[in-house]
Amino acid sequence: MAEKSAALTGLTEAELDARHADKMKKKKAARDKILATKTEVKGLVIVHTGKGKGKSTAAFGLVFRALGNGMKVGVVQFVKGKWETGERKILEHFPEQVSMSAMGDGFTWETQDRQRDIAAAKAAWERATALILDEEHDLVLLDELNIVLRYDYLDVADIIAVLKQKPAMKHVVITGRNAKDELIEFADLVTEMEAIKHPFRSGVKAQRGIEF
Amino acid sequence: MAEKSAALTGLTEAELDARHADKMKKKKAARDKILATKTEVKGLVIVHTGKGKGKSTAAFGLVFRALGNGMKVGVVQFVKGKWETGERKILEHFPEQVSMSAMGDGFTWETQDRQRDIAAAKAAWERATALILDEEHDLVLLDELNIVLRYDYLDVADIIAVLKQKPAMKHVVITGRNAKDELIEFADLVTEMEAIKHPFRSGVKAQRGIEF
Repeated sequence: MAEKSAALTGLTEAELDARHADKMKKKKAARDKILATKTEVKGLVIVHTGKGKGKSTAAFGLVFRALGNGMKVGVVQFVKGKWETGERKILEHFPEQVSMSAMGDGFTWETQDRQRDIAAAKAAWERATALILDEEHDLVLLDELNIVLRYDYLDVADIIAVLKQKPAMKHVVITGRNAKDELIEFADLVTEMEAIKHPFRSGVKAQRGIEF
Repeated sequence: MAEKSAALTGLTEAELDARHADKMKKKKAARDKILATKTEVKGLVIVHTGKGKGKSTAAFGLVFRALGNGMKVGVVQFVKGKWETGERKILEHFPEQVSMSAMGDGFTWETQDRQRDIAAAKAAWERATALILDEEHDLVLLDELNIVLRYDYLDVADIIAVLKQKPAMKHVVITGRNAKDELIEFADLVTEMEAIKHPFRSGVKAQRGIEF
């Protein structure tokens, strides 16, 4: 609280206010100076990785932001999760802006069938390649691609070769834990989601609206 | 690729497939066992913090997932950013499910006016309190609340006192860097978004559809 700050610093409220205004003025000047150097505009390759929550959720957040800006979005799900009801229902509100393909076949520990997983991954990558290379979609989400790369169902070199050919303004978002080093190296923006605290540990189950 | 794995391990494709099936069967059994212990259902207090991208974006992802599940959502923006066009346009598609208040007054370095910031924070918190305590909304997003807490415009003890009174099934999502220790301690789920790579460093500017 304001009162507490005043008590702690020994300054009056008016002195705190003046000091604050001065500090913020300097902060704004510094920010503006940095922003002025940021002039390049290009499509980004974005990777969300790490063991924490929010990798796919943040990617879906980017999808909705893009939709709100009138952009066209392609989504390929490399692992067909059961927990996608919410996003799917919302995406159906924007049929003219979204191309959605769930070509994966369930988690690897659900199928327990390596050849089926490999075939599904290859089919999904074929669809992804078309979305990455076309001139129609502005943003492409490759959800859980990192998982199939980790199992070597696809070769990361093949993925990077296609990303190199993408139209300059296209954004590509790739999610999944254990992102390959080559992909991190190639990407423009990489965020690692780290779990500091997880309710699963204390016996809380996955819940509609939060987990799926 | 499958071929590469076979070459590396010295096993035939068929042997690799069999080994994989066995491994995945064990993984599924282990997972199912863990999931069976997760029986508690409750509203979660979720915190997205850290210096990386995706804190608010993942929170908006949660909002859209909740909307897709037919839930009612309240959003209070503690810092009225200029970069919110996309989300706002999408949220307007669901007028009956969303209550949106942008009560902050721009970044502290934009207003440069501490008393105005404190008044705005207090008004936003009043609105937030109503959303947290009512029986109507299923999920409440307090976007950038951590920022006003960091400046001591609000007292974290007051925030936790209200969170303790929330209806049992209500989810509350709080974003912003530098989350207070007390809040991390109190929350059920905390994710830290860490920047591994950021295009700003290489001179790329904030872009519509990605940053706002």
